[in-house]
Amino acid sequence: MRVRNKPWAKDYIEDHADKMVTEPEPLKGNWQSRFPSEQPLFVEIGTGKGQFIVEMARQHPDRNFIGIEIQMSVIAAALKKVVASGLTNIQMVHTDGEAVNTFFDAGEVAGLYLNFSDPWPKSRHAKRRLTSPVFLAHYADVLQPEGQIQFKTDNRGLFEYSLGSLNNFGLIFDGVWLDLHAATDGVEDIETEYEQKFSAKGPIYQVIAHFPKAAE
Amino acid sequence: MRVRNKPWAKDYIEDHADKMVTEPEPLKGNWQSRFPSEQPLFVEIGTGKGQFIVEMARQHPDRNFIGIEIQMSVIAAALKKVVASGLTNIQMVHTDGEAVNTFFDAGEVAGLYLNFSDPWPKSRHAKRRLTSPVFLAHYADVLQPEGQIQFKTDNRGLFEYSLGSLNNFGLIFDGVWLDLHAATDGVEDIETEYEQKFSAKGPIYQVIAHFPKAAE
Repeated sequence: MRVRNKPWAKDYIEDHADKMVTEPEPLKGNWQSRFPSEQPLFVEIGTGKGQFIVEMARQHPDRNFIGIEIQMSVIAAALKKVVASGLTNIQMVHTDGEAVNTFFDAGEVAGLYLNFSDPWPKSRHAKRRLTSPVFLAHYADVLQPEGQIQFKTDNRGLFEYSLGSLNNFGLIFDGVWLDLHAATDGVEDIETEYEQKFSAKGPIYQVIAHFPKAAE
Repeated sequence: MRVRNKPWAKDYIEDHADKMVTEPEPLKGNWQSRFPSEQPLFVEIGTGKGQFIVEMARQHPDRNFIGIEIQMSVIAAALKKVVASGLTNIQMVHTDGEAVNTFFDAGEVAGLYLNFSDPWPKSRHAKRRLTSPVFLAHYADVLQPEGQIQFKTDNRGLFEYSLGSLNNFGLIFDGVWLDLHAATDGVEDIETEYEQKFSAKGPIYQVIAHFPKAAE
C-alpha cells in the first residue's frame, strides 16, 4: 500500500493533540473547552495550509477560531503554523467539513469562512459545492442568529452559482465584491496561500451573507 | 435660450405619433391598444438609441415591446430605428422611466430590461440608481407574477450594489453572469450600442431575477 501522506504528518499531529482534534463529534456543544477563554467561535471549512485562519486568530484575539481540513498532510502544514504562532485561540480539526452539524451544536458557531472551495465545475457535481443547498442547510443549523457566511473565490462559475444558491436559499446579502483586491471600502481581506499565488490571473470575488431570522 | 435638442428631433417625433407616446399616463392599463396584437409586454427603461429593444422586437414577434427614454434627441434616434425596422410590435415612450407605476397598471408588464443604467457612483446618490429599493417597489407594482427583471451593466460598483439591493428586497435570482460575453450556457445577449463600444474594457455583468409571490 502506497503511503499517501507525508510520513511526518501523522506523528506531528499526534505530538500536538492540544492544538488538533481528530474526533470532533464528542465535542459537539462543548468546543469552548478547547480554548482558554470562552469567545465567539469562527470556523473555516477547508482551511488548507492555514495562512488565513492563523492570521485571523492573530488579528482577532477576542475570538476563537477553528480550521477544518480533510487532507492530513495539508492540515499538518497548517498545524505547524499554529504551533509556530504560539496562539491559543485557534484549533485545527482533521475531518470532513461536509457535515458540520454532526459536530457543532445549534448556534455554536458565530461565523463561517469558505475560501477558494473546490469549484466542482460539472453540473452533475453541483451538490458537492460547499455553497449548495444541502451544505447551506447544515450551516443554518450551526450558525447563531445573524451569524455570517463569508465566501471568497477566484472561480467565476462557482461564484455565479453561489450567488444564486445563497439567494435562492433565502440568505440576506451583507456585501458583494466582484474584485476584492480593488475594493476601496476598507473591507478586511486576509489572503490565503492560494489567493496570493493566483490572484494576478483575475479578480477575487466575495460575498458575505446571513440567514434570515425564523420570523423573517 | 439655447436649443438643447437636435432641431429635427421634435418634428420627427411629431411626425411619427403612431410609433411614439409622449403622454403615457392616459394609457395606463390600456397599452395593448398601441399594438396590432395583444401579446406579453416587455419594457426597457432607459432605452437609449434603441438597438437592444428594436432587435428584441425583431427576434420576438410574439411579444410587444416598449422603450422608455427621457432624452428627446436620444429617443428620436431610437424612433428612427423603429421606423426603419417596419416592426409593429414596438413603441417608444418619451418620458421619465422613474415612476413606471404611474403609467403601467398592476401586472401589465411581463418583463423589464435595465441596460447600462447610470451608475450614480456617489453613495449619497444611491437612491437614484434604477436598482434602488424605491424603484424596485415600482417594478413590483407593474410586473406580472414571475415577471423578470433583466439587469445588465459593465459598472462593477453598480452591479455589486444591485446584487445586494435586489437580494435585500427579496427578489429571487434566476441567473447571474459575471462575464456575459464569455458565457457558454447559451443565454440570449442582444447588445446595446454602449455594450458594443465599451465591452472590450471589461466584463459585462447580468442578473435576471423575479419578485416572490405574495405567499412566499
